[in-house]
Amino acid sequence: MENYKLFLVTLSSAGLVAVLAIIFVLRWVLHFQNGLAWDGRQAEFNWHPVLNICGFIILQGLAIIVYRLPWSWKYSKLTMKFIHASLNLVAFVSAVVATVAVFDFHNTSKIPNMYSLHSWVGLGAVILYGLQLVLGVGLYLIPFSPISWRAAFMPVHVYCGLFLFTSVIAVALMGITEKLIFGLSNPKYKDSPPEAVFVNILGLFLVIFGALILWIATRSSWKRPSEHSLHSNEGGEDSIKVGPTLSQLSEEAEGEGFGEIRRRNNKLDEQVN
Amino acid sequence: MENYKLFLVTLSSAGLVAVLAIIFVLRWVLHFQNGLAWDGRQAEFNWHPVLNICGFIILQGLAIIVYRLPWSWKYSKLTMKFIHASLNLVAFVSAVVATVAVFDFHNTSKIPNMYSLHSWVGLGAVILYGLQLVLGVGLYLIPFSPISWRAAFMPVHVYCGLFLFTSVIAVALMGITEKLIFGLSNPKYKDSPPEAVFVNILGLFLVIFGALILWIATRSSWKRPSEHSLHSNEGGEDSIKVGPTLSQLSEEAEGEGFGEIRRRNNKLDEQVN
Repeated sequence: MENYKLFLVTLSSAGLVAVLAIIFVLRWVLHFQNGLAWDGRQAEFNWHPVLNICGFIILQGLAIIVYRLPWSWKYSKLTMKFIHASLNLVAFVSAVVATVAVFDFHNTSKIPNMYSLHSWVGLGAVILYGLQLVLGVGLYLIPFSPISWRAAFMPVHVYCGLFLFTSVIAVALMGITEKLIFGLSNPKYKDSPPEAVFVNILGLFLVIFGALILWIATRSSWKRPSEHSLHSNEGGEDSIKVGPTLSQLSEEAEGEGFGEIRRRNNKLDEQVN
Repeated sequence: MENYKLFLVTLSSAGLVAVLAIIFVLRWVLHFQNGLAWDGRQAEFNWHPVLNICGFIILQGLAIIVYRLPWSWKYSKLTMKFIHASLNLVAFVSAVVATVAVFDFHNTSKIPNMYSLHSWVGLGAVILYGLQLVLGVGLYLIPFSPISWRAAFMPVHVYCGLFLFTSVIAVALMGITEKLIFGLSNPKYKDSPPEAVFVNILGLFLVIFGALILWIATRSSWKRPSEHSLHSNEGGEDSIKVGPTLSQLSEEAEGEGFGEIRRRNNKLDEQVN
């Protein structure tokens, strides 16, 4: 892998910021708020930030970069697709439970649902993420779809994955803003009590985590090498299932039409990475 | 240009959403709020969303994709760099004036500055955007820096540009959330009065605008062709200034080290796009 040291530094930084974000959100709800429960009240609401940050943001971030971890390259592409899909599934379930928690809390407290921009973009992101997951599994994990569809859809799959990840972080920043305004009364948010500063820092961690994951995910030199070069002597599981052509297409497909990809595919092995 | 019709549809959609966002933010401050003025009060605050949305978001979005407009390909790369830098400069000035407006308003109204996550990420984005502008001009517009620096820094320049654009939209969504909570009292935000729904829709327009600009900016098949292929018979202004090597490097540099780029550069003309 090219620039391996830089990769390790970036990955470690993302890991560190993720751990800090988990510690901060847990301390927020356990120390500054009234803990976690499933009682329709504030303690149930508290599952909303915990599950969204730990699951919907951090696990989703890990799912995005999991192909790029060099230690995973000894496993077949199919195995890695299972891991990628499983992490995204857990992230999706976290988001759904987090959404149920806030609806329960609103209904118990007679607060209207779905009035804020946070709720509009947030619910939209959960629904589109579910759709992305179903389409991703249907196109890439269960090899029923024609190769041409898979290759043509890959740039959309990659783009939507990164865009949804970014959107979910933006939704979390709106959620933090809402919660600090509504939750702090004496002193208020504008008086910068310790909780306000603490949770603002949590928001900064989410922004930095997003920046690092997006950087790792968009460096072409950190891509998983093609199946052909990884399994040229043994024949990988994936290359039996869907053939090296698709693997290579998938990796090279960002932003290019299918005809273009097929034409370039013949040159692929000559190129670095 | 490949997929020219899709490019036109995407670009027109981005343009339409941008116009709608401008109409919506103007109607927000002129119809629902108390207009625009420079008096240290609410009407001065209103410049904050107007300038940030029209300048810091929409002009910045245009600056990002300006190289990709096929009608601009007849102009030299240097001319386009001037246009790119000028649009970013106007966007930066808009952001600075918008920031002054909100500080003025806060000081007059005895509201503390810089307590919210919106203000932290927002001011950070303005400062980093200014830094990106200075470095961009110093490295690419005024050709004083060595070619190796310019090529090595290009992936960072591109990434930071897209990341800052995304961050500014996230900051706007937090700002909308804050303003609707603080500004609406009877009925409140949670009661979904017409202003709340109207401004939520403005927020959605910003998300869609961001999605479209990022899609256009990340399709490799929509890149401006290299100077070498555009000016192969005449010798472009830019190719005299910094040579075709840099132009090609700049366009191919995303995510790759300089050594890697130089190695690939020789193959560049054989590749499509």
